[in-house]
Amino acid sequence: MSKGTVVLAYSGGLDTSCILVWLKEQGYSVIAYLANIGQDEDFEAARKKAESLGATKVFIEDLRAEFVEDFIWPAIQANAVYEDRYLLGTAVARPCIGRRQVEIARREGAQFVSHGATGKGNDQIRFELTCYALYPEVKAPWSMDANLMHISYESGILENPKSHAPADLYLMTKNPEDAPSAPDVLEIEFKIGVPVKVTNVKEGISKDSPLDIFTYLNEIGGKHGVGRIDIVENRFIGMKSRGIYETPGGTILLNVHLDIEAFTMDKEVRRVKQGLGIKFSELVYNGFWYSPECDFVRHCIAMSQVNVEGKVQLSVFKGQVYILGRESPKSLYNEELVSMDVQGDYDPCDASGFIRINAVRLREYHRLQGFPSIKQ
Amino acid sequence: MSKGTVVLAYSGGLDTSCILVWLKEQGYSVIAYLANIGQDEDFEAARKKAESLGATKVFIEDLRAEFVEDFIWPAIQANAVYEDRYLLGTAVARPCIGRRQVEIARREGAQFVSHGATGKGNDQIRFELTCYALYPEVKAPWSMDANLMHISYESGILENPKSHAPADLYLMTKNPEDAPSAPDVLEIEFKIGVPVKVTNVKEGISKDSPLDIFTYLNEIGGKHGVGRIDIVENRFIGMKSRGIYETPGGTILLNVHLDIEAFTMDKEVRRVKQGLGIKFSELVYNGFWYSPECDFVRHCIAMSQVNVEGKVQLSVFKGQVYILGRESPKSLYNEELVSMDVQGDYDPCDASGFIRINAVRLREYHRLQGFPSIKQ
Amino acid sequence: MSKGTVVLAYSGGLDTSCILVWLKEQGYSVIAYLANIGQDEDFEAARKKAESLGATKVFIEDLRAEFVEDFIWPAIQANAVYEDRYLLGTAVARPCIGRRQVEIARREGAQFVSHGATGKGNDQIRFELTCYALYPEVKAPWSMDANLMHISYESGILENPKSHAPADLYLMTKNPEDAPSAPDVLEIEFKIGVPVKVTNVKEGISKDSPLDIFTYLNEIGGKHGVGRIDIVENRFIGMKSRGIYETPGGTILLNVHLDIEAFTMDKEVRRVKQGLGIKFSELVYNGFWYSPECDFVRHCIAMSQVNVEGKVQLSVFKGQVYILGRESPKSLYNEELVSMDVQGDYDPCDASGFIRINAVRLREYHRLQGFPSIKQ
Amino acid sequence: MSKGTVVLAYSGGLDTSCILVWLKEQGYSVIAYLANIGQDEDFEAARKKAESLGATKVFIEDLRAEFVEDFIWPAIQANAVYEDRYLLGTAVARPCIGRRQVEIARREGAQFVSHGATGKGNDQIRFELTCYALYPEVKAPWSMDANLMHISYESGILENPKSHAPADLYLMTKNPEDAPSAPDVLEIEFKIGVPVKVTNVKEGISKDSPLDIFTYLNEIGGKHGVGRIDIVENRFIGMKSRGIYETPGGTILLNVHLDIEAFTMDKEVRRVKQGLGIKFSELVYNGFWYSPECDFVRHCIAMSQVNVEGKVQLSVFKGQVYILGRESPKSLYNEELVSMDVQGDYDPCDASGFIRINAVRLREYHRLQGFPSIKQ
Repeated sequence: MSKGTVVLAYSGGLDTSCILVWLKEQGYSVIAYLANIGQDEDFEAARKKAESLGATKVFIEDLRAEFVEDFIWPAIQANAVYEDRYLLGTAVARPCIGRRQVEIARREGAQFVSHGATGKGNDQIRFELTCYALYPEVKAPWSMDANLMHISYESGILENPKSHAPADLYLMTKNPEDAPSAPDVLEIEFKIGVPVKVTNVKEGISKDSPLDIFTYLNEIGGKHGVGRIDIVENRFIGMKSRGIYETPGGTILLNVHLDIEAFTMDKEVRRVKQGLGIKFSELVYNGFWYSPECDFVRHCIAMSQVNVEGKVQLSVFKGQVYILGRESPKSLYNEELVSMDVQGDYDPCDASGFIRINAVRLREYHRLQGFPSIKQ
Repeated sequence: MSKGTVVLAYSGGLDTSCILVWLKEQGYSVIAYLANIGQDEDFEAARKKAESLGATKVFIEDLRAEFVEDFIWPAIQANAVYEDRYLLGTAVARPCIGRRQVEIARREGAQFVSHGATGKGNDQIRFELTCYALYPEVKAPWSMDANLMHISYESGILENPKSHAPADLYLMTKNPEDAPSAPDVLEIEFKIGVPVKVTNVKEGISKDSPLDIFTYLNEIGGKHGVGRIDIVENRFIGMKSRGIYETPGGTILLNVHLDIEAFTMDKEVRRVKQGLGIKFSELVYNGFWYSPECDFVRHCIAMSQVNVEGKVQLSVFKGQVYILGRESPKSLYNEELVSMDVQGDYDPCDASGFIRINAVRLREYHRLQGFPSIKQ
Repeated sequence: MSKGTVVLAYSGGLDTSCILVWLKEQGYSVIAYLANIGQDEDFEAARKKAESLGATKVFIEDLRAEFVEDFIWPAIQANAVYEDRYLLGTAVARPCIGRRQVEIARREGAQFVSHGATGKGNDQIRFELTCYALYPEVKAPWSMDANLMHISYESGILENPKSHAPADLYLMTKNPEDAPSAPDVLEIEFKIGVPVKVTNVKEGISKDSPLDIFTYLNEIGGKHGVGRIDIVENRFIGMKSRGIYETPGGTILLNVHLDIEAFTMDKEVRRVKQGLGIKFSELVYNGFWYSPECDFVRHCIAMSQVNVEGKVQLSVFKGQVYILGRESPKSLYNEELVSMDVQGDYDPCDASGFIRINAVRLREYHRLQGFPSIKQ
Repeated sequence: MSKGTVVLAYSGGLDTSCILVWLKEQGYSVIAYLANIGQDEDFEAARKKAESLGATKVFIEDLRAEFVEDFIWPAIQANAVYEDRYLLGTAVARPCIGRRQVEIARREGAQFVSHGATGKGNDQIRFELTCYALYPEVKAPWSMDANLMHISYESGILENPKSHAPADLYLMTKNPEDAPSAPDVLEIEFKIGVPVKVTNVKEGISKDSPLDIFTYLNEIGGKHGVGRIDIVENRFIGMKSRGIYETPGGTILLNVHLDIEAFTMDKEVRRVKQGLGIKFSELVYNGFWYSPECDFVRHCIAMSQVNVEGKVQLSVFKGQVYILGRESPKSLYNEELVSMDVQGDYDPCDASGFIRINAVRLREYHRLQGFPSIKQ
């Protein structure tokens, strides 16, 4: 007699196949769930493997469009970067995968959900917090420590932070040394802070659905070797780990979004929003996508994007993204005001008053007492 | 009879030459002051020109070493970046130039100091706040609006933010398309958050004084086209302007410092320090280097750097900086703890408790009321 | 022939009467505008005085209800306090007064607006920023330095920060020493973070319109001497000034709102919102109510208040507000979970895992290197 | 044969007496440790009880002076308040108690330390994080869930957040209704942000050691009913709890320190330090006193206090603290500059330039596009 039903996030690989078999042996009925979030995988082969291992049902879910629209786009709006460098590619995928898994569990009446993430990483946390938030009555999200059965290039030479990554490690991006010797020039159009169209200026190709846009940017970024980083990061649980990431399309969008945002967003709104973006990045990294504070911050950020609209031209070349120019109907840039040759309604004398008022405090400070113990 | 003595920050160019002549015509005695902060200039020709225009004295001051040590190094420690992109190259130079100018004015008994910065830019503010802070009894820092006599490539096509910059604009950096097709590999060593040695691994060259290190990094960065940006930024006075910058050595150091800092600094200290670094960047951009709050923040940041020590290997290629590996006697990275194969004194069960406690709040939240109006 | 029309914010006092006469003498046509924001004043006497001094029109505008609803309520939602102590009573009134003044100027086709605020205070800034924001085509907001004709108890003994304020200074609040020797007990009900009803529990009185609620809380607070402070604050322009304030109703609401908010708002939303509230307070203090960043922050704060709902019981006595208890249909407080006697679905073992995971970083830190130079 | 030695934080009460007996029954050798941090307790009676229950040694440690100097003083410098209201009285005691307990354990060669804090509260976390940080090689801090044997007024009526606290609950403070009908007037002198002397102006009493000062302020505050709060707070683990606190001396010092700090600290230093103070409060609340980030923040805060020096006069009456006046040799307050009657070297015209420059951005914003979707 079955101990109950488990929805298992199944990858087709060795580790989750072992978990599937082990769960069956323990007396559970297992539903295999494969999320297609754009990884390079033979899903039909995985389906057959799951069935042959005894899965009672197999769900292969194409989440690519919702992954781009519901998870990557908010991250782009936030300029989400963890610890100044990591673009959170794994962290934004987890709540997307977990959301559908919980939906399946509810629909199929499964009491358990299971994943294959290790007990040391962030992914276990991200996965389980998603489950607790969205399915609080779930009996027990199953936490398998899969690392004993795990063979992975991560556990080898890369754990020594001094070792260089092997040149053939990367799968999405070309080695910049081997990348084309001429740039691609793109124009990306934004509305409410998200891309709505990308055009390859020379080749005349253009894309305008979220999934097509992101896929195309991955292709161009990958071709030119954009978005490789090798960092040491702080996991949620406090230990440092070394991570190597490649994020071609995301890196292009981060750069371009920063540019169109600076062009159309008020200076001081930008400062407040920058702080919210840092907060958002930490929450997503730590697995708190489905938390009240992440809801709150995400909606504040979305509100800041209403006028982030316009077109940016850029070139992509040998691992780099170069902004070439930008235009917008919502620009706050005033060409006339900024010009050195035209005074317009800007009175240079005002600057003197502005400076003298700003200096009132500094003069008092130095006149009255100085700050000896913390001076250079 | 003289109306008094002015120390004029003299560049040798048309605009400050005009100011020199005009000040003399108004009855002032003029001391010309040229700061050598590493720009490409014929200082002796400038001296002769100033003398021929009637300067009573000419001071040519080599500030390069103090510019690197007293101003660039603190910016590197802070990871100072304004609005996520601008590395503050101009902003950190102003307090350095102004400090010496005020010293000369005090020593020579000059009642006035003068510069040639325009009434619309940040530089007037940075210059004058420095003077008021360091020389509060100065009668009147002289603010000439030099832009009427000013011919500069800034005032041309670049003011249209859509126009692409001409390819021959850049002076410090090679066009990445023309840069060498093989990378340089460097090792940079840090102590208390600043570089103390750079070695070109293949060529066996090494440098170990601050000025030599920074000059060498400019050379290598320039050779590979590193550090070009084209941005729209918000000036202190609130208007947006388009700026094109090239910062080869600074860009290399920003990347490498981020890496060695992440490797040696505690996660939560890093978070607090990141906020202080953003504050520092805004203060420097706005001209408040000599303010109590900038003193305070700079000293807090310096305190955070005591253990930022170690070596980073990196390659520089076609406009990019790639981190290859790092090592440090002060590392907080524990290879054994992070390994998937070794449990050490880390108990995977603890992670479950940690997650369940983090989920207490999320479960309560969703159980009791939800957050309907701000949900996706 | 008239030089144009000025809408003058007229108080009926000596200073603005002098400005009115002076403006007429300079050849302007003057419209007098009196804003009733709840101050104790004989408005009809002021109207007659303005007419007799030559005002072409006199507008007396009752802004009390919109002052409470559009300006005080958002401040309450934000827990707005400047520099930890000042409740911003003056600062929130300025944009309210200025908004109507600009409306009158537009409607009457006046090219100028004028106020009587001094060149040293915050109020000039608050007034003029409001005008520039809402009426950017206004030719020149008139800035009279009224302080030469100004006789006020502010300029006397209080400017010495050591001098005690005279006992008879206060107008809205009774001296706590003379206040009743028995408390009033109130119940205040909130919806979306603003009070919708106040009930005097013993006396059975209740109020339920915003203006009535706020007026009644001023009455009760004033009767018991609530809300007097004597502080040194930093003005926007950087100088310190000593301010004495009495804010009876606002002080009650700040305390009660803090309580119902803590009861119904998620912990981490609260942390983010606390930072936004500090930002909001600075913006309002500095006169930036009508700025994009204040709009943004105010809407974020409003969004955080959707569930801030419930009833708080409190007593008011001898200058103090004491919270007695609270209840809410949207409470996140779980009596069962918090109880020491009931375990519910909280497993004490989880706490051990939670603590050990939090300690991973601390143990590593102390094991590997310590932090010698900044330790106690 | 003994399983090892445990240093037990012993209170003399029922719960820790039970733990002592239970530990002995399990085969441990038990050292009882009583920390005197100013609580009202018969320490000699507790010693005898511990001995009679079988403790091998009993240490009674008078920590009062170091509690005030090493823990309360930094909290005063930080203006430490958790969630706007709680003065952290329990939270700052825990690291003080834990520090000595770990010292004893090291000295006596004990492998274990034990406390009686419940698995639901913050105190378990604060205690255990202190142990892990200071004694990382400790085998296993013992976590007894003492709440099953616990009879306490906390677990009764107060858990209903609506219930009023009984009038006879409070031990340190008089009911304000029964407090004296005349105030006490004090003068408190500060150096580097901490009190160095308190004088009762009318009675001529003065105190000048840290412990005497704090004890005297508790006496005066208690006599006048100062510092009672009834709040709902968010525990570290995410659940809300209702807490009733009385903090007489701490409340006086918070108010007075805020005043002398505002008088002597630069405006912008204060803003940065305010953020650090909020961070410090969260860290202390959550038990992270002995963490790298708390070390860092505490030292930054201490650095900000170098000029926080001077005297404040205040009265204490019926639950309230009223600031009367202040003076300081390090004041940044300039009586001449602030005066309405004296212009000094402040030019009112500068204010106009300052305002117009601040309005450049606001005018552009409204002129070019407005912010329709987030406007009121």
